[in-house]
Amino acid sequence: MKIQQIPVKADIEEVHERIRPLIHKTPVFKSQSINELAGCEVYFKCENFQKIGAFKARGGLNAALSLDEKSLEKGLCTHSSGNHAQAIALAAKMLNTKAYIVMPDNAPEIKKKGVLALGGTVIECEPTLEAREKGVQEVIEQYGATFIHPFDNYDVIAGQATASKELLEEVPGLNYLFAPVGGGGLLSGTALTAHYFSPETAVIAGEPEGAADAVLSFQSGNVEKAPFVKTIADGLLTNLSTRTLEIIRKYVKEIITVSDEEIVEAMQLIYERLKIVIEPSAAVPFAALLKQKDKFKGQKTGIIFSGGNVDLKKLPF
Amino acid sequence: MKIQQIPVKADIEEVHERIRPLIHKTPVFKSQSINELAGCEVYFKCENFQKIGAFKARGGLNAALSLDEKSLEKGLCTHSSGNHAQAIALAAKMLNTKAYIVMPDNAPEIKKKGVLALGGTVIECEPTLEAREKGVQEVIEQYGATFIHPFDNYDVIAGQATASKELLEEVPGLNYLFAPVGGGGLLSGTALTAHYFSPETAVIAGEPEGAADAVLSFQSGNVEKAPFVKTIADGLLTNLSTRTLEIIRKYVKEIITVSDEEIVEAMQLIYERLKIVIEPSAAVPFAALLKQKDKFKGQKTGIIFSGGNVDLKKLPF
Repeated sequence: MKIQQIPVKADIEEVHERIRPLIHKTPVFKSQSINELAGCEVYFKCENFQKIGAFKARGGLNAALSLDEKSLEKGLCTHSSGNHAQAIALAAKMLNTKAYIVMPDNAPEIKKKGVLALGGTVIECEPTLEAREKGVQEVIEQYGATFIHPFDNYDVIAGQATASKELLEEVPGLNYLFAPVGGGGLLSGTALTAHYFSPETAVIAGEPEGAADAVLSFQSGNVEKAPFVKTIADGLLTNLSTRTLEIIRKYVKEIITVSDEEIVEAMQLIYERLKIVIEPSAAVPFAALLKQKDKFKGQKTGIIFSGGNVDLKKLPF
Repeated sequence: MKIQQIPVKADIEEVHERIRPLIHKTPVFKSQSINELAGCEVYFKCENFQKIGAFKARGGLNAALSLDEKSLEKGLCTHSSGNHAQAIALAAKMLNTKAYIVMPDNAPEIKKKGVLALGGTVIECEPTLEAREKGVQEVIEQYGATFIHPFDNYDVIAGQATASKELLEEVPGLNYLFAPVGGGGLLSGTALTAHYFSPETAVIAGEPEGAADAVLSFQSGNVEKAPFVKTIADGLLTNLSTRTLEIIRKYVKEIITVSDEEIVEAMQLIYERLKIVIEPSAAVPFAALLKQKDKFKGQKTGIIFSGGNVDLKKLPF
């Protein structure tokens, strides 16, 4: 990590300048019928249109760009079967180095193909956290590659922060800004951006009831586990880390939990009205807004759509 | 109809100025992975993001705006169960008049709701062309409303022409421009636009094998029927009209037919790579390009995505 403490305003500005040429400035969508239905103005920041189909490209690229030349040369590694894996593979491809992705051997074929298509190396392991961590350790020892954590990393957090920075530059004066919370990389980045660049904007998180660790951690101040893990929002299963929890406790106003039924309903509305493809996790903050829409009535709100990588054969409607 | 003969360049320019404040200037999407796959540069004009979710808003609005005040006051009418019905209902709503939409009583509930939500009046009839035409005749007699044909109308054609005009303004120098063909309103408008504003651009149509009337009419010079009608591309079932056929014979280079399998494959690629929702009919021209991709290798091509109104519960993948 180049950034050694909670990113300051200048860090996020510098990171944005650095990754800007390598990422898409994703569009902001809105819809009159959605506004009528939600009872407020809603601006959707479409990171489903980001490279690799998710905001993770921002943090992955920034973390890779933060390495010194010698470290970068030896390659990047991570364990993930989700969007972060592709983000690291993309970063390695763009920066002309190697990506070693440790993946459970039961991960969907399409996830492996995604990494391979970007030129990454997939290293299979048993589907346990221990096996994944051991796999990473071996890659580090064998190749000297640098491990990039999906969210417990200030360079990654500062990268994710640039999505909401773009939104706030394009749509100033938001009263509320919503993001989903899994490990908390996107949420803590969003919260920092609002704090530094638009302090009048309150940041709200949406979390699935079936992975409700963040709401507990937010209350207790310790990294808690969810009482049970069972949700369609497969990008939001992870617990917070100490780094993300600290930022979230400082700068997030509220975490609203939603059921899978509410997530699917919100997701379907987005497909129908906005005509765009999002993954279930991306629908979570919009579901949170709809669930408590009386609270946000007449307000100017923004929502970060985290990604659009969904198995089309398993759409829940 | 205000325009009494094949629209000239000035007609299309005037129409565009007139409807511009009332329609969305839809975005143009592109994707590196699609380009690699297609072997050429592809620019997608996203009319799935147009008002009512389809290009039809353009022609409907222009036809309504072409009426004198007294006629407009008495209302608009059409028979349709598709996007044109909603386009006429939208035009009536925006211009503060009435829309009478004659619909077969077996039309999907969602189509009726769409018209009703826009303030239109739905008049049910038996599901035959005769009953539909009789229904329209009765509305004309009873209310003095003006019938607006979905494509056999030069005002409508000139309205649809503005979609490709926007694309050619944003992406000049296209070698090829693809559109789907059903009744031919969008295709003839596209062909006129290319002819007037970018004569170096060849216009290619995509047509489903399961509604292959246009390709026959294109050969024979007469309005032909399809040998059989059975396709997933439910927006392209109609035959051409004399007006659209004349323009298409003059200014379209080629009609490429595609199977439903090819349509579904193209549609899935768009959902996966572009992360947007399109209806099966909209995937037809892209399927045509992929089918004959050797022909278009290395070329700069544009594709009009006609719409995004699809029953999400019946996605073909």
